[in-house]
Amino acid sequence: MFDALSPELAPDLRRRLARIQPGIKSLDVDAIVLCTPVNLLYTSGKIFSGCAWIPHKGEPHFFVRRPQGLTGTNVHAIRNIEEVPAVLAKAGLAVGRWALEGEELTWSFWPRLSRLSEAPAVNGSGLLRRARSIKTAYEISLMRDAGLRHAKIIATYPRHFKPGMTDQQFALECEASMRRAGSLGLFRIHGNTMEIFMGSVLAGDNAAAASPYDFALGGAGLDDSMPVGQNNTKLLPGMTVLVDIAANFNGYLTDCSRTFSIGPASKEVKRAHQWAIDIQAAVVAAAKPGVSCESLYQLALDTAAQGGYADTFMGLGQKAKFIGHGTGLYINEWPVLGARSAAFLEPGNVIAIEPKIILPGVGAVGVEDTFAVTETGLENLTPCDPQIVELQ
Amino acid sequence: MFDALSPELAPDLRRRLARIQPGIKSLDVDAIVLCTPVNLLYTSGKIFSGCAWIPHKGEPHFFVRRPQGLTGTNVHAIRNIEEVPAVLAKAGLAVGRWALEGEELTWSFWPRLSRLSEAPAVNGSGLLRRARSIKTAYEISLMRDAGLRHAKIIATYPRHFKPGMTDQQFALECEASMRRAGSLGLFRIHGNTMEIFMGSVLAGDNAAAASPYDFALGGAGLDDSMPVGQNNTKLLPGMTVLVDIAANFNGYLTDCSRTFSIGPASKEVKRAHQWAIDIQAAVVAAAKPGVSCESLYQLALDTAAQGGYADTFMGLGQKAKFIGHGTGLYINEWPVLGARSAAFLEPGNVIAIEPKIILPGVGAVGVEDTFAVTETGLENLTPCDPQIVELQ
Repeated sequence: MFDALSPELAPDLRRRLARIQPGIKSLDVDAIVLCTPVNLLYTSGKIFSGCAWIPHKGEPHFFVRRPQGLTGTNVHAIRNIEEVPAVLAKAGLAVGRWALEGEELTWSFWPRLSRLSEAPAVNGSGLLRRARSIKTAYEISLMRDAGLRHAKIIATYPRHFKPGMTDQQFALECEASMRRAGSLGLFRIHGNTMEIFMGSVLAGDNAAAASPYDFALGGAGLDDSMPVGQNNTKLLPGMTVLVDIAANFNGYLTDCSRTFSIGPASKEVKRAHQWAIDIQAAVVAAAKPGVSCESLYQLALDTAAQGGYADTFMGLGQKAKFIGHGTGLYINEWPVLGARSAAFLEPGNVIAIEPKIILPGVGAVGVEDTFAVTETGLENLTPCDPQIVELQ
Repeated sequence: MFDALSPELAPDLRRRLARIQPGIKSLDVDAIVLCTPVNLLYTSGKIFSGCAWIPHKGEPHFFVRRPQGLTGTNVHAIRNIEEVPAVLAKAGLAVGRWALEGEELTWSFWPRLSRLSEAPAVNGSGLLRRARSIKTAYEISLMRDAGLRHAKIIATYPRHFKPGMTDQQFALECEASMRRAGSLGLFRIHGNTMEIFMGSVLAGDNAAAASPYDFALGGAGLDDSMPVGQNNTKLLPGMTVLVDIAANFNGYLTDCSRTFSIGPASKEVKRAHQWAIDIQAAVVAAAKPGVSCESLYQLALDTAAQGGYADTFMGLGQKAKFIGHGTGLYINEWPVLGARSAAFLEPGNVIAIEPKIILPGVGAVGVEDTFAVTETGLENLTPCDPQIVELQ
């Protein structure tokens, strides 16, 4: 373990290890070797260039190429990854058969590690995704702290609005306030196809613009090189603005969206928004350990349909196939509350629930909050007023 | 080709294609299939979920899963990637043997595509990296436009300084001004291990803090979850501040760093900074098509040593092993001006050259600009005053 970890983190890393090690055995390998930033951070508390070698029992070893100067127990400075077997041998340890991060490593890098193992490596990404999906109490305390900070900032968004602004101008001020409040900004997404800057601010019909990405709503974006989010829509009376900017205060991403109206919200807007709040409340009321994630998605769809929003729920035409998703070190952790999800909620899951409805000609309405799954139900980690706030 | 491309882009995509297609043949395959955002943007002008199938001769075909509604010649809507062979067959085309993006696709995704090919797929990432490293005249015009906007913003940084600020507070204002000027913010890095938000602002001894990442200088960062860049150093008289925030005005990243001093710069600071400017000038003077990238690195090292900066050039202890790098759709395109680089400069390369010197107890000094390689030498795409500017 690295030196100088905080008194909360050091024992927590042991807990995470205890969750990972039994899974290594069931992959029929002797160790899992991790190289990518999120998994290194999760298992060691640090990000470094090198790898973590975690055996199915006993102590993990950390091999650090960069930064120079990191110290700790079972921490080894290396010049390149090929030195790992020799260092292990010197420590009297068998190299063993390895699992690697098949969903994170590139195709071309995998063989470089696999050939160091005593047998062709197997894919162990799922083991880490599963471990990360069930947060420890300490991780939840970090997310609770981050969520409170996130919620506080959202309450300040209205003060940035000035009549005549575009969605982008409003977004810039919201982003800047998030950064000033301490968000690190970095938006980590699992997988190599989704990209976004800090989040999206969707106004008017741009809220329904289809995007390449698997986000809840898309937006056309400002440029073909980043086809997501705000698109320089001028914010005009009668429009709604859905602000969905993630926060990253401590590495753990919290997700919270709120809806604003330019000028007074119409009856139609208010009804649809309240319906979205009610959908979220229905999902929250039904959610507890053991409940199927697909059933929660279905419950949201059914509730939306009851309100007459079947065709406008989660997009027009191209719809998101989920109403919620795990979040943590990545914005898209397990489980997914979506179609064909085989997962069941477990205590320690942290999930964002984000029912959103499109009103053609107006924009999107809806809410999103990040919740921790407890033994008895959900705890809202981003508590703030869910009602539409008028911008003026 | 997609419909409604700009009149400059459509013919430019043909030029890029003409550069890629001969390389497909020499990989001994019939087509290259691309899935990742940067390569889709480079070859089609769009980012989408799906793939581009580019045969060694004839027309490329584009298979779009999302967004719905994209139209064009040889553009096919699909529900999943497995439909590609049948759609090709229907169009009277042989599926052929494929190259895939081995350096971008994950190990677990690769087989899903490879099994659609008529033979096990081979790695074609290098072909695209090489094509992207030689920009067309149109791409350079985009980067020239972006670089000018970037340079203009840098001149405004001093007005954000207030005595008593931290590096982070100063960074936030510089970032916000870049965003307000139109930067899309997204910082694309090739590979799955380097991460940064918009760039770094390094003050005092934090400039020498070793980082896990292969950037020119590191910085400890604000949190173990993002160990790079500013670290809440209070900006005090006598310190230097090196601002290295990339710009992304149109998908093409320009890289430009400038140095500021808190209060008047000492003689020592001025000398070292001028030496860095001179190192850049020496590299620029030597750089033209046919020159070895490693020799330019060596020239920079030698020039630094002549000034007495051998030990403090490009870091203390842990040093960057390069003084420049290609930039474009990724911040780290080919070629690298570094140790063991086998590349030679070619017309159309766009490279950032960034000599930086550490002054212990003070900070870093140095400059970085983005240059296009022309037939006769280098054109600076980020022209702005290289001198140290005093913040007060």
